[in-house]
Amino acid sequence: MPSYEIPTTCPAGVVTNAGPNFTLSIATVPVPTPGPTDLLIRLNATGICYSDIHYMLEDLPMMPSMSRFGVRSPGHEGAGVVVALGSAVTNWSLGDRAGIKPGYDVCFACELCWGGLETYCAEGTQTGLQHAGTYQQYIVSPARYTTRIPEGVSDFEAAPVMCAGATIYNSLKQSGLGPGDWAVFVGAGGGVGHMGVQLAKAMGMRVVGVDGGRDKRELCVKLGCEAFVDFLETKEVAKEVVRITDGKGAHGVFVTATSKQAYETAPFMVRVAGRVMCVGLRKWTLEMTPGGVVAGADPLWFVAKNLHIMGTAVGSMLDTQEALSYAARGLLKPSYEKFSLAQLPEAVDKLRKGQVAGRLVVDFNS
Amino acid sequence: MPSYEIPTTCPAGVVTNAGPNFTLSIATVPVPTPGPTDLLIRLNATGICYSDIHYMLEDLPMMPSMSRFGVRSPGHEGAGVVVALGSAVTNWSLGDRAGIKPGYDVCFACELCWGGLETYCAEGTQTGLQHAGTYQQYIVSPARYTTRIPEGVSDFEAAPVMCAGATIYNSLKQSGLGPGDWAVFVGAGGGVGHMGVQLAKAMGMRVVGVDGGRDKRELCVKLGCEAFVDFLETKEVAKEVVRITDGKGAHGVFVTATSKQAYETAPFMVRVAGRVMCVGLRKWTLEMTPGGVVAGADPLWFVAKNLHIMGTAVGSMLDTQEALSYAARGLLKPSYEKFSLAQLPEAVDKLRKGQVAGRLVVDFNS
Amino acid sequence: MPSYEIPTTCPAGVVTNAGPNFTLSIATVPVPTPGPTDLLIRLNATGICYSDIHYMLEDLPMMPSMSRFGVRSPGHEGAGVVVALGSAVTNWSLGDRAGIKPGYDVCFACELCWGGLETYCAEGTQTGLQHAGTYQQYIVSPARYTTRIPEGVSDFEAAPVMCAGATIYNSLKQSGLGPGDWAVFVGAGGGVGHMGVQLAKAMGMRVVGVDGGRDKRELCVKLGCEAFVDFLETKEVAKEVVRITDGKGAHGVFVTATSKQAYETAPFMVRVAGRVMCVGLRKWTLEMTPGGVVAGADPLWFVAKNLHIMGTAVGSMLDTQEALSYAARGLLKPSYEKFSLAQLPEAVDKLRKGQVAGRLVVDFNS
Amino acid sequence: MPSYEIPTTCPAGVVTNAGPNFTLSIATVPVPTPGPTDLLIRLNATGICYSDIHYMLEDLPMMPSMSRFGVRSPGHEGAGVVVALGSAVTNWSLGDRAGIKPGYDVCFACELCWGGLETYCAEGTQTGLQHAGTYQQYIVSPARYTTRIPEGVSDFEAAPVMCAGATIYNSLKQSGLGPGDWAVFVGAGGGVGHMGVQLAKAMGMRVVGVDGGRDKRELCVKLGCEAFVDFLETKEVAKEVVRITDGKGAHGVFVTATSKQAYETAPFMVRVAGRVMCVGLRKWTLEMTPGGVVAGADPLWFVAKNLHIMGTAVGSMLDTQEALSYAARGLLKPSYEKFSLAQLPEAVDKLRKGQVAGRLVVDFNS
Repeated sequence: MPSYEIPTTCPAGVVTNAGPNFTLSIATVPVPTPGPTDLLIRLNATGICYSDIHYMLEDLPMMPSMSRFGVRSPGHEGAGVVVALGSAVTNWSLGDRAGIKPGYDVCFACELCWGGLETYCAEGTQTGLQHAGTYQQYIVSPARYTTRIPEGVSDFEAAPVMCAGATIYNSLKQSGLGPGDWAVFVGAGGGVGHMGVQLAKAMGMRVVGVDGGRDKRELCVKLGCEAFVDFLETKEVAKEVVRITDGKGAHGVFVTATSKQAYETAPFMVRVAGRVMCVGLRKWTLEMTPGGVVAGADPLWFVAKNLHIMGTAVGSMLDTQEALSYAARGLLKPSYEKFSLAQLPEAVDKLRKGQVAGRLVVDFNS
Repeated sequence: MPSYEIPTTCPAGVVTNAGPNFTLSIATVPVPTPGPTDLLIRLNATGICYSDIHYMLEDLPMMPSMSRFGVRSPGHEGAGVVVALGSAVTNWSLGDRAGIKPGYDVCFACELCWGGLETYCAEGTQTGLQHAGTYQQYIVSPARYTTRIPEGVSDFEAAPVMCAGATIYNSLKQSGLGPGDWAVFVGAGGGVGHMGVQLAKAMGMRVVGVDGGRDKRELCVKLGCEAFVDFLETKEVAKEVVRITDGKGAHGVFVTATSKQAYETAPFMVRVAGRVMCVGLRKWTLEMTPGGVVAGADPLWFVAKNLHIMGTAVGSMLDTQEALSYAARGLLKPSYEKFSLAQLPEAVDKLRKGQVAGRLVVDFNS
Repeated sequence: MPSYEIPTTCPAGVVTNAGPNFTLSIATVPVPTPGPTDLLIRLNATGICYSDIHYMLEDLPMMPSMSRFGVRSPGHEGAGVVVALGSAVTNWSLGDRAGIKPGYDVCFACELCWGGLETYCAEGTQTGLQHAGTYQQYIVSPARYTTRIPEGVSDFEAAPVMCAGATIYNSLKQSGLGPGDWAVFVGAGGGVGHMGVQLAKAMGMRVVGVDGGRDKRELCVKLGCEAFVDFLETKEVAKEVVRITDGKGAHGVFVTATSKQAYETAPFMVRVAGRVMCVGLRKWTLEMTPGGVVAGADPLWFVAKNLHIMGTAVGSMLDTQEALSYAARGLLKPSYEKFSLAQLPEAVDKLRKGQVAGRLVVDFNS
Repeated sequence: MPSYEIPTTCPAGVVTNAGPNFTLSIATVPVPTPGPTDLLIRLNATGICYSDIHYMLEDLPMMPSMSRFGVRSPGHEGAGVVVALGSAVTNWSLGDRAGIKPGYDVCFACELCWGGLETYCAEGTQTGLQHAGTYQQYIVSPARYTTRIPEGVSDFEAAPVMCAGATIYNSLKQSGLGPGDWAVFVGAGGGVGHMGVQLAKAMGMRVVGVDGGRDKRELCVKLGCEAFVDFLETKEVAKEVVRITDGKGAHGVFVTATSKQAYETAPFMVRVAGRVMCVGLRKWTLEMTPGGVVAGADPLWFVAKNLHIMGTAVGSMLDTQEALSYAARGLLKPSYEKFSLAQLPEAVDKLRKGQVAGRLVVDFNS
């Protein structure tokens, strides 16, 4: 077993003035001490997730705020190595590769935890919200809820899988879509969407990408979309999707984008018994249009089309391990742009402006 | 095999001036002639469904209008006896008991028809819309899509099962709820709801009724609800449902009512991974409330609670047969009020005013 | 929180000479000390399971032997109260009611544990096999894998649910049978079977009991069987079952008996796509009969009838909690005969001779 | 619409002396006349299935014999063109491409037919058993149960899909295996197996082939097997499969071979909750081995491993259409060897000797 010298401080991205006008900067913070059942992990990489921005803005009405818990570093998809073990930890070793998920820990003693829905555990807490997140180089994680990174997956690939990849994989599994079914990704070129495209293809589905611009199109086609609909070029996105999918509509639409329009159009893209999977965190108000055409959430529409709308959150322990196994087999290759920690504020800003194809990853060693 | 004398005319409830100011009256109409693969059925009973009123009002934006097809009699849940056989019919006999469903016929040659979703067949047509409905005493029905009524079920019980009973049974099956799960029926004392209560109980679920008034409460408790929430007495209907259901919310809510509020409250009644089943045909616009609290269809809510919203329509051939078998076993007893055909306009009026507990049934022989 | 005085010794049923000629007697043994994450439980009741006899006989080829682990007390369905807490236990209190399952602990860190199949965990160990069992009054149990007993269930009722009840409940769930389906229990009057009958009925199924003798018949009918087939009176058991189940056969057969014939007959009791659920631990050799008629496991038979044969083991953490909730609702009432600890050897002997209707339970306080 | 001249006679492979010593020769037979709801199809291709040999041998104890129905031509996977329409047929046109399945017709009026299990319909009849089969150039088929061949699939490719392809596709669907799961095909290089390999791969599974000889190995690797186990080279086939599949065993084994050993070994190839899918029609007697090790069907084994054994038959209408759509997308390419009708007896003989990689197809036009 290797041995590690643990410094007393480490660099971290920290937030001050969390809220609409938050400031994100790089600071030196104390290295935390693991409790008896915890691991101390030195991260090599953290991904940047749009939810980090929501956490810093503190604008999600149903979520607690990080400042309430005295947490200063968001971030919830990290990859690194175990450098210290709590006294009671038996099934991890120093030097083991470890991944950090959005969920920090759960109770393992309720129906949701026993039933594979532990991400909804009422006792569950979140990385980067109630506990310091992966914008900090050294991080504590409960041994029982830490994920092993398999061989063949680099830390830069693993980090985006821990949240974005496992999230869309969870949504794909819950959708009930099977091989041969048509899956549409709205926001197909984004951090979550471009992994959905690859996973859906690996799962035998037929994939249509919806996004805007030539970069996104090229990425999507390269990753396996049979067709791409550019919303910058077409007004009739839903009609175009229906045309492509045998004139019937897709079996499922995965809305990974955070635009109002994305959600409003989705119900019109699916066939009878089709599923609209809500992944992106966006307020969505469905209304009657002036002309009397009924928007998606009208029960009449639900009834007439046997429509299903479902929301899914981050991946469970099992989902995450399975998503990583697709990465280990080379079937899921996150497309990422690398930044140094010093560049973190700049990277977050770029994401906020929506100008990112693929995922942004911080390299703690550069 | 018995023999039947077929009259040339028969009485029927017929609509004139279909639309917002329709008139429903009793008239004498020609007895129709069955085609080679059809049955001629003499009805003893027809139920009255709220959809009949929609058909006469012609106010459902996504449905064709009966007047376009020259149809004058709505009605789509009937029970009677086979009195004549088309020349090519081999598996029915004169005297067989037969039930009429909302679906008139389907193609039997598409993926939906092969997959048990034939009620959504693109070639499907509706009884009382494209074809004369069960407000007419003698009615034609394709032999292959007519339902057999089992022993032990009277025609007055069978008629309401053909639409209302099979519809809610379909919704129960599609919901995925299992034994021991909490099922809430909004509109539990109505024509559809009171059958849902009985079926859910027979399927091993724990049932909560939501409706208004003492009559509804008494009916619901008698039929097996463990608890009843009266919306005339409580403003906090959803909170009350959550309290009853172990403080977590129900596993599923079946919205059989047609009120805006019913739909808007339903998402707040369910637990993690709960299902909102849309059954009642009502326009439903989900909006932000002034205070910024987000209504049901916000993806954030979907995501945070793993919420599922599904719409289901009328029962399939299989659903209908299964629902009838619950009736045959005495586990589903439609509560109905009987009218003569002469009283049909009065009965429809009563339903329109929402003053009905259970179902209204016309006795063609009184 | 109550406080408890812990004695240094306690009475226990202990085995000497485990194997074909084992001896079971009552002795005084040291009270064990809980580790940091364990509970110490004082049992009020233990059930007696046929598997205990297999463990003492050491005749199950695929299971480890208790003597190899120095374990002297079998028993794996117990109910009592928490009298001491390990130093690291936070979510249990002294005085909490606690139930002991066949599974002693699992790893909580593999795909099976995450997927609700933790009873098959490769790291899992068994109560009464690798760890002292419930024939001992004071017993240690890992806090994370101990089950809470709900209000409304006595310890004498809870004990048999911990193994027998949860086992058959697990089998019912895995069978995929739904409300309205025909479920047959072979050994319907036995310890496992009589709980299966009640649970199946509570889950909305139609139940047929197969067993021998008037006592068994009376118990089965009282518990809700629609029909009973007595194999002491009928040679054509399978034919009789088929006749009762609409002439098609049952949807599923649960073989809780341990006789060769029970297993050989079961495949002939089910309809197309029927399931044979293996619950009883019996060697089962399927052969051609002399006349050339093919017994159950012939692939031709599998293919021609879309036959499913599945084996299920003890209940998971979730299954056990759910089975107990049926008991709490009064829908599952284990029928048991009570013995004192001094009578344990006599009770085991009675079970071995197969003369038991319902379950045998030891009262540690009598 | 094209027009066709219908000859009065056509060539056919016909059996005389059906039974252990049957003779198959080529003869001239009358062209049959379609009934009012039938199609007359001129076949361009028929596949040869091992079941044809069973039908000619009349050695399947649970199936009726063709001679009892006066049928002289077996064969049940054919592809051709519609050359005449029954008087009541409306949804087919002359010139439409049509495929013939093992199932000739079903009742469309029972629970099995409504539930997608129509291949088990009690009223169902078989092509080549109760009705003349595809060894005959002109064949009658009920319009409602005839399959459309999609663009992009030749008749030589379509024919083997009608039985072999749809059969293994049905088994794959029923197995419940999903993307990422390990699927093993025993007989992977055979007519059924080599299509299973391709379909499983297209459905996202990881595939292991088991078969004997270099030809089979090459075919399997070419079609997408990640590993191949040659039973001519290894005695420890099951152990080798377990080693390949992460040391746990496969999620499912599809036994397409007809050897005793194939069936006996299969249960040892799967992991916890693994499925053994019975496809090949072989008598299978499971016994204790002399050393006391228990063979597959012992309930102890079932219980201890949560083993599932299921049998599946030919594909349904929906399965067949879906299997053809994989062919249309180029993901399923039956490997076949072409024969003229004159060579049919020789081809059947070759299959009987088990010397065939892929499928044998007769070209009616050569």
